[in-house]
Order: sequence, then C-alpha cells, then structure tokens
Amino acid sequence: MNCLTDKEISDLLTFLSFDSVSTKPEKRSRCVDCAKWVRDYLQQSGLSAELRDTGGLPAVVARNQHKAELPTVLVYGHYDVQPEEPIEQWESPPFTPVVKNGVVYARGATDNKGQIFAHMLGWRRYFSNVSAPVNVIFLIEGEEEIGSPNLAPFLEKNREEFLCDVVVISDTAMLDDNTPTFTYGLRGICALEITLQGPDRDLHSGIFGGAVLNPLIALSKMLSALHDDSGRVAIPGFYDGVRTVETWERESWSQLPVTEDRIREITGVPALWGESGYSVLERIWARPTAEVNGMWGGYTGVGTKTIIPATAHAKLSFRLVPDQNPDLLFSAVEDFLYRLCPPACRLQILRGQCGRPYYLDPRSSLGKVAVSALREAAGTRSPEPVLICEGGSVPIVADFERVLGAKTLLFGLALPDSRVHSPNENFRLSLLDYGTRLHRSILQLLGEVLPATPQLARSHPK
Amino acid sequence: MNCLTDKEISDLLTFLSFDSVSTKPEKRSRCVDCAKWVRDYLQQSGLSAELRDTGGLPAVVARNQHKAELPTVLVYGHYDVQPEEPIEQWESPPFTPVVKNGVVYARGATDNKGQIFAHMLGWRRYFSNVSAPVNVIFLIEGEEEIGSPNLAPFLEKNREEFLCDVVVISDTAMLDDNTPTFTYGLRGICALEITLQGPDRDLHSGIFGGAVLNPLIALSKMLSALHDDSGRVAIPGFYDGVRTVETWERESWSQLPVTEDRIREITGVPALWGESGYSVLERIWARPTAEVNGMWGGYTGVGTKTIIPATAHAKLSFRLVPDQNPDLLFSAVEDFLYRLCPPACRLQILRGQCGRPYYLDPRSSLGKVAVSALREAAGTRSPEPVLICEGGSVPIVADFERVLGAKTLLFGLALPDSRVHSPNENFRLSLLDYGTRLHRSILQLLGEVLPATPQLARSHPK
Repeated sequence: MNCLTDKEISDLLTFLSFDSVSTKPEKRSRCVDCAKWVRDYLQQSGLSAELRDTGGLPAVVARNQHKAELPTVLVYGHYDVQPEEPIEQWESPPFTPVVKNGVVYARGATDNKGQIFAHMLGWRRYFSNVSAPVNVIFLIEGEEEIGSPNLAPFLEKNREEFLCDVVVISDTAMLDDNTPTFTYGLRGICALEITLQGPDRDLHSGIFGGAVLNPLIALSKMLSALHDDSGRVAIPGFYDGVRTVETWERESWSQLPVTEDRIREITGVPALWGESGYSVLERIWARPTAEVNGMWGGYTGVGTKTIIPATAHAKLSFRLVPDQNPDLLFSAVEDFLYRLCPPACRLQILRGQCGRPYYLDPRSSLGKVAVSALREAAGTRSPEPVLICEGGSVPIVADFERVLGAKTLLFGLALPDSRVHSPNENFRLSLLDYGTRLHRSILQLLGEVLPATPQLARSHPK
Repeated sequence: MNCLTDKEISDLLTFLSFDSVSTKPEKRSRCVDCAKWVRDYLQQSGLSAELRDTGGLPAVVARNQHKAELPTVLVYGHYDVQPEEPIEQWESPPFTPVVKNGVVYARGATDNKGQIFAHMLGWRRYFSNVSAPVNVIFLIEGEEEIGSPNLAPFLEKNREEFLCDVVVISDTAMLDDNTPTFTYGLRGICALEITLQGPDRDLHSGIFGGAVLNPLIALSKMLSALHDDSGRVAIPGFYDGVRTVETWERESWSQLPVTEDRIREITGVPALWGESGYSVLERIWARPTAEVNGMWGGYTGVGTKTIIPATAHAKLSFRLVPDQNPDLLFSAVEDFLYRLCPPACRLQILRGQCGRPYYLDPRSSLGKVAVSALREAAGTRSPEPVLICEGGSVPIVADFERVLGAKTLLFGLALPDSRVHSPNENFRLSLLDYGTRLHRSILQLLGEVLPATPQLARSHPK
C-alpha cells in the first residue's frame, strides 16, 4: 500500500526534525523555522503562502487562486509538538526521525505533523498542477499544544479572510490502520476549581476535633453526591439537552472490535465502571461525565500530622455531549455545590476552561460526502468506513463553527499505538499515502456537491 | 500572689535560655548542655541526679534517698522544646527570655520548662532540707517534642528502677489562671493512611472518562460514609467500649465558662458542628472522632489537567476515648473501608501511630487526693478546682500505665493564651509560684494516703 517516493519521505523527515515545542520559550526560533519550512513547502506546491502574526507563534496560511464559482475548504493542522520528555524513554532521538518497518518514529510523527503533511503532500500530488475543484485555505498553526490561545482571536479579527464552507482536520483517531474512520462527534468540557474553607487555620485535631467540621470530610461528602448509585450524574439539569443515543449508533458501535476486556487491559483497572444502561463506548462517546481531576488538603507529607485542615480543594471537570450548553452546565454545577455546602464551611468556586461539544449528523449531506471520500480513498478492498465519536475535545472545532459558521470533517489518522504525547511517538507511512488519497477524494467530492460561495469569492478576489 | 526570689526567677531564665530544640540535629549539644543544667540544679537540691543514655538525647533522672516505708512518686517532664520558627513573629528573641508584667516570654516557657521547673523549684523550696514524705523520682526527658521515640523502650529496659505508685505531670491546660484544674481524661489516637488505586497510570479523561471509576470520587464516597447525618461515626463497632458521659460530668462541664461562641471565634468557622446529643465540650472531651488529616491525588497545580488520576490518598486519624481499644478500632476501621472499596479500585491501608486513651476516675481515692492538693495549693480565696478532660493525647501517660502499672495525675499549668508551639510562647510567674505549692501539696498528701511500697524499696536500697 506504500507508494511514497524517497523525496516525499525525506520531506516528512525534514518536517519532523524541527524541535518545534511550543510550550518551551527557548524553542521559539525553532518553531518559526518550522513554520517557514511549511510555508516554503506549500509555496513550492503552487499555493500563495505566508507566515501570519497571531500575537504568539506564527500561523502558516496558504491558499490557491480562489474562484467565485467554487466552494471553499479550510484545512487545519498544527506544526507545533508536545515536549519530548521523558527523553530517556525514547528508543531513538525524538527529533532525529528514523523509519523502521514502514513506521517513522519522532515527536510529532502523528500529532500532528504526519497528519497535516498528508494533506500538504496530497495537495502537491494531486492539485498543484491542475485546476483544483475547490478554493483551499491551509491554516497550520503553532500553538495547538498550548491550547491555541491566539487562534480564535486571530480568526475573529480576520473573519472575512477565513470564511469557508467546511473545515477538514486530521487530528483524531482511526479504529485501526485498515479501517477508514469518520469522527462525527466530540465531547466538550467545562472545568472548575472549588475551595472549601472551614477554620481560619489548621487546627489541632485533639483540641478541636469533634466540634469543628473537617473540610476534607465535607468536600468528600459533596463530591460523593456527584453520582448516584447507578453511575449517573446526580446534578439536577445535568442531562438537559443530551442527545439520545440512536438505535443505529448502538448497533453500529456494538459491532466495533473494541471490547470491554481490551479497555480493562489498556487501563489496568480491576473492573470497568459507568452509567448503567450504556455500553462502554456509549459511556465514552455519547454520555457526559463528571470527574475530579485533582484534590488536596491538609498534611500530605510522611507520617502523621493530627490536624483539622483549614481548607480542602478540588479540580473538577465535566465532559459534555451534544447538545449540552456549557453555560447552563456551569450554573447547574454551581447551584448544586452551593446547595450541598454545609453551614460550617465556606465555598468558593472558580470557573476554568470551557469548550462546546461537537456533532455533525453523519447522515447529512456533508456526512455522506465524508463517508464517500473515505470509501474512495481506502479502496474497494478495505472495510466499509466506520462512524465513531471521540470522548475527548478538539476546542478549535467549536471555534470554527462559532466564528466561521463552518462544520468540520474529522478524518483522523492516529492509531491506538501511535503513542501520541508519549515517548516513541510514531506514524505509519502507509497512512501518509492513504491520507494523500483522502485529501484528493474529499476535495473532489466537496467540489462536486457544495454550491459555489460567491460572497466568499467576492471577498477574496485573487 | 507572686512570691518568687530574684534567684528563683533567674534560674528559670537560665533554663529557658538553652535552645534545646530536639528536632534539630545541630542543636544536640545544646540539648545535652540543658540536660546537664537540669541535673546540676536537681543535685543542688539534695537529689542524686544523673544523665541517662536512652539511645537518643539523654534523660535526666534524679531521686532522693528512697525509704522502704514510703510510697514512690515519679515526676515527669521534658527539657526539649519546639522549634522557634517562624522567628520573625517573635516580639523578643525566643531564647533570650524577658519578663514583662509578671509574664516570661521564651520558647518552652510553658511547654514544658516552666511547668517542670515548678516541680524542680517546689522540691528545692519545700523538701530539699527536710525528710520528704515520699520517695521521689524525677524523669525529665529530651525527646518529647519528637514523639519520645526512646522513652518507652528505656522504661521497659529499666522497669525495676522506675516502678512507682503514681506519676505526676504538668503538661496540660488550666481553665484560666485563677482556676485550679485537674485533667482526669485524655483521648487516644489511631492513625492510618489509605491508598486507592484505579487505573495503572493517569488516564486521559476524554478518552476513558465514563468507563473508568475515578479513584478520587471513589475515595470521596468512602470517606463520606465515615459519618452519618447526625455527625455520628458510622463505622460498625466504633463506639464499643465508649464510656457514657455521666450526669455529674454533663452538669459540671456545662457550668464551665467555655461557650460555643468563644470556640467559634477562636477557630474562625462560620458555624460549629458535631455529634448531635452532645455539647461542644462533651464532643471534644468525651466522644471519639474520625478525621481526615490530609488527602491528595491527581493534578494539583495551576490550571486544568484533564485526567482520571491513577491513585487517591488520605491520611485518617481517630481520637479514642476510654475505654475504646485501639486494636479493635483499627480492625473495625479496616473492615469498614475494605467493605466500601468498590470493585473498580484496589485499596491499601497502612497503620500508623496508635495511643490509648487515658482515664482516672476523679472520685477514686487518687482523684480525691489530686483535688485536695489543688485546693490546698490554690488557697481558700480561689474557686473550687474544676475537673476536665482534654481532647488531645499525651502518649507517655499510657506508657506509664502499661510499663509501670502507674496512674498519672495531670496538673497542667498551660493557659489558653500561653502560645504553646507558637511565637511569643509565655508563662505566668504567678503559676510558677502556684506550681511549687502544688508540688508540695501533692507530695504531702500522697505521702499521707498511699501505703508504703516495700517491693519498690527493696529494689532501690539506697
């Protein structure tokens, strides 16, 4: 299945050799070098490409000659990568990419350089010398791994320039390396931090114990009320707006080769857990959750310190599913917690990050195009494409919908063993080849089914 | 009320000037210097005194000429002190004692140098030149502030030498500086640490959230079951052996000038809390408790990390009252927690420190002697002695009972504003004078009521 030329492979290896770690200030110039390499690569593919100042690390923006009669497709990706640490666990240096048995090992190989490079190479292979079926905009940013703090403001400021009919992203997972996979839903997230204050300082548990409520016990009691005995979140209003898992989803997911045993094995838990009435995949893909990501208070050193701590703290986050509303959810959670706070303590709640869930009906015309493109790229000898959701969040997808009014098609090329964010991250070269064909198919099919977007063409006369 | 000579005060100030901080290895020689000063002081009071090697910092042991026809009283105290930090909060240097308005300020002024010095001076004043009414043993150790790790083994090894009829300790609290106070009960303590393991590493809360039980939520649920809604500990068997609060105790404690408002003010809590059916003092002095002294797990830094943590941890301790049995309590707690541990987690419990509660019936003959001694020392113009308990623990008291078979009389001279363990620790000189009279009275009265202890006299022929 691997039909890559030496030059194509060597271009990918060059891309991977930049240590473009966005979270490290000292790597700023390496990030900029990487962005310039991406810009030059796209320019050499017939696109007009430039670095754009976002306020942080630059974004690469490239486009073909836009035409009034064509629809517009924005291809999003990022050239920055996670830190390489722990370095000692790498079998080869993270920024000296090596290919073994058709797999390339390097930091960023899958997340996201390999995946966005599939689109870059797809464009060069199939469209650089022909009249393209769509207006294309490549938007490849450099701050995804630090939460894209500047991208939404940049899009808001330059909205007219990025208006498009649909966004294409390869930054999610495939079921396995042989199964074309379409991700049509993502969970959102709301995070908050709570502090429960009891006494004004740590108290001697002998002198005051029995007469003063222990904030850690009080907080435990509050958090224990988050779920009922069936694993369902017990916050009133929590499930408002939650999409029902449809019959076809139930049936389709139940046939996927993701067993409970396998998930138990991967996570190392003695037993799985979750909301009764739902399968494991339904719990992860289609049901909202309440988690405590961190909790602390009192003495945590060696031995014993017999205190009633002054404060107890917890970091909570909630995974949202379509069509839960994050603002309503924040309020519901806060009401719930304030009502549970006992009179012997004071409660403070600090709202944190917030991202909407995402859903694109796979039976819609856009959804059908996505599936057709996958089918075409994978070829007749591959299994039928699978429709999945992901339990995680890709916050920028909600921004594209909010700022640009565009839906996103998620064609992930990450595998369960890609080791994204971990040592020995890798990317299968066969997927690069497949990704280029996917790029061709989706642009072709979108060009066929989407109407022209004249208002866009007007605002981008070139 | 202050009838101290300049020499007596200057001796106390010398004692206080030693920075005998037992927890600091670099202060070892200062601790030894302080012990030698105590030894010399007692020698100059007519006692045979020596430093004894305990394996750690030396203990000072002193005794008069023991006689077969007399009972034996062991007076216990400690010459080591808490660290002086935070040094910047002291109004005068912690080891340069100063006297202002009849109060001496220095680290250790109340805990325990001032209090044990009251006995040392009491002996010198009243018994050094006369035939004493009892055989006395002073045992003044140097490791109380680090938990007396070597004292119980030392007593076990030299048991014959320390056999006595009763122990006298001044290391607890007085109600106020005008009210003679007898402490007849102390709570014990059992501590343990629990670890709840879920997945074998921190998991992505998007990829796995909903299908894996969060150990922090599971631990919260377990800890929330420690108490029922009435504030009563819900562990089966927990209250086995607990003494009923007697009618006379209820009545007597209810008349003490310790109001709920005052405790709320001291602790800074918005409201008090506790087991229904009991007053605040009853909750602290006569009822057992369950506390979480520390709890931690997951991400506790700035911002958000969306994980399901691998583990959750808590340090628990239980205050015990007479006649709860620490061993049975440990088992009851462990049974309870193991039964609550959900199948999706693994529970590990590590037993920690353990100290028995203490109780001496104040209506017993020994109790009556204690009250008489207080009444005599305080004089006819003082209020009647009050009988109180303390919610804290003095572990060595249980050791004296276990190793030597001797009950302890607790005559504390610490006041609510003595700032024990805090900056600007202080001791009222009027209490030093009162303490010397108390020493005289208790030795006199014990000499009158206790029978001779011939087996003791035989083993100490000198």
